Amino acid sequence: MMGLARRGLLSGAGAGPDLILVNGADVATADDAAEAPAYGISPLNRGLHFGDGLFETIACRRGRARFLDLHMERLTTSCERLHINVGDVQAIRREIQTAAASADNSLIKLVVTRGEAVARGYGWSGKEIATRVLLRYGWPVEDASAQREGVRVRTASLRLGENPALAGMKHLNRLEQVIARSEVPPQEAAELLVFSQSGWLVSGTMSNVFLVRDGRLLTPRLEACGVAGVMRRVVMREARRDGLEVEETALDSRDVGTATEMFLTNARIGIWPIRSLDGRALTPGAVTRRVQDLLAPMLENPVDA
Amino acid sequence: MMGLARRGLLSGAGAGPDLILVNGADVATADDAAEAPAYGISPLNRGLHFGDGLFETIACRRGRARFLDLHMERLTTSCERLHINVGDVQAIRREIQTAAASADNSLIKLVVTRGEAVARGYGWSGKEIATRVLLRYGWPVEDASAQREGVRVRTASLRLGENPALAGMKHLNRLEQVIARSEVPPQEAAELLVFSQSGWLVSGTMSNVFLVRDGRLLTPRLEACGVAGVMRRVVMREARRDGLEVEETALDSRDVGTATEMFLTNARIGIWPIRSLDGRALTPGAVTRRVQDLLAPMLENPVDA
Repeated sequence: MMGLARRGLLSGAGAGPDLILVNGADVATADDAAEAPAYGISPLNRGLHFGDGLFETIACRRGRARFLDLHMERLTTSCERLHINVGDVQAIRREIQTAAASADNSLIKLVVTRGEAVARGYGWSGKEIATRVLLRYGWPVEDASAQREGVRVRTASLRLGENPALAGMKHLNRLEQVIARSEVPPQEAAELLVFSQSGWLVSGTMSNVFLVRDGRLLTPRLEACGVAGVMRRVVMREARRDGLEVEETALDSRDVGTATEMFLTNARIGIWPIRSLDGRALTPGAVTRRVQDLLAPMLENPVDA
Repeated sequence: MMGLARRGLLSGAGAGPDLILVNGADVATADDAAEAPAYGISPLNRGLHFGDGLFETIACRRGRARFLDLHMERLTTSCERLHINVGDVQAIRREIQTAAASADNSLIKLVVTRGEAVARGYGWSGKEIATRVLLRYGWPVEDASAQREGVRVRTASLRLGENPALAGMKHLNRLEQVIARSEVPPQEAAELLVFSQSGWLVSGTMSNVFLVRDGRLLTPRLEACGVAGVMRRVVMREARRDGLEVEETALDSRDVGTATEMFLTNARIGIWPIRSLDGRALTPGAVTRRVQDLLAPMLENPVDA
């Protein structure tokens, strides 16, 4: 076990990943010391210098990657938007499936950057070769009450900058989320709601958000900022299939104040009802429960799409 | 010569750096293969995952780092804003000086990230140990006409997101600059001017901008976005010392349209007059020349501050 393993970054249990692949090469099994440097990230990587790349966080249950088609679709679409040559998408898909299959329940984080800088400066030549990092983590210890009773949420004072050129993508420029998350310790708030500079509700720091009003599901439009989450998309799709009205719309703090139910979504958590927002109690109601019931089977027994 | 050197990333001439230090360790001289992995960047580095860090680009002439005190001050202040424990600032300062001294004219890029992630997610524990990457490049081949006749500039269609929580810092979330720079090839525009979402002039993608109106220097306020450049600060200071009026203010496209002179600044280029903006000819005039003359001696014979 070389390098990262020696420095205690690889761990079978605990907070760190139990598998790290860099461009498909396994860091932990790099027994040939002479080859080991290739498994670190180059100090010239544009992901490090500019956040010039994307990521996906994929939940895996019973050895299968959940909603893998949707994750691959978002990754591919975003790479096209940024003109990142991601390479063989089917090979990446298989790499994720293989990593998922050799664990029971796990979380896979895939990072794709434009690769190493060919020259100084922001410009890229098109000759860059994308860098791919796959990290696999054990499934985090669950607080079952989060799904059932819901979580406590606070509103972040940080507001997100608006930029349609970046909106929707799960890109690597996440300093806003880092700052917002640091406003309140996790034991006081499982998540923080974030608004945009113009005062529109966007999402949580690591989740999308839904409101219930008059029996309808409302979720913020993500044209100016925010990440178009895979679980958000699944919730909208399944709710509509089941006959619920779902609307992507502009929502502000008054909409939040009058919502009767609210919940958060992401690839890992599925659906977390919000049981308190800035101290105001909310009760997970019939619509939230209905959506949770709709999703439960596909969360436990993953299908690709 | 291991790793990066073997893969052709280190080069004495050309586009790549001729020196790479990761936390002070020299990549190129990592002859002990067993230690080599430590010189790559960890796949868990928060700089890669979130752009959770900062950088400085320092011009070095005759073996001395230009305006080193100002660079260190900005780095330190920004680390405080982001609660990044940068470590021994004096040691970093000496590292830069040493790297500068072993070359004649060079550019040093210093990247400081919050370090390796202790756990998944945006939150940080405070236990992270900052990662430091120093890259030294040969001085780029100069087009002398850039200083004298000026450069051609275009306006980027991308507008910068506004966020006071990030404004002023030279942080690693630079995807906006990457996208803006890619709008026009370098042979058509040496730089692109960028405005904010609200329509305010901010800067170039890699430079700050000054306008001349009625003999006064005007430069955008950077409260909502943009990087507070070291050369911008030097220009304001030296111009005021010489009796010029300098104002940081809100500027829009009409101000740009009526400016009689405009110039760009950054640590490397010093001052580039703009000779055309979106095809409109501009003539570097008396104020631009006066500021260039003020700065010339300190650009060639660096002092620390």
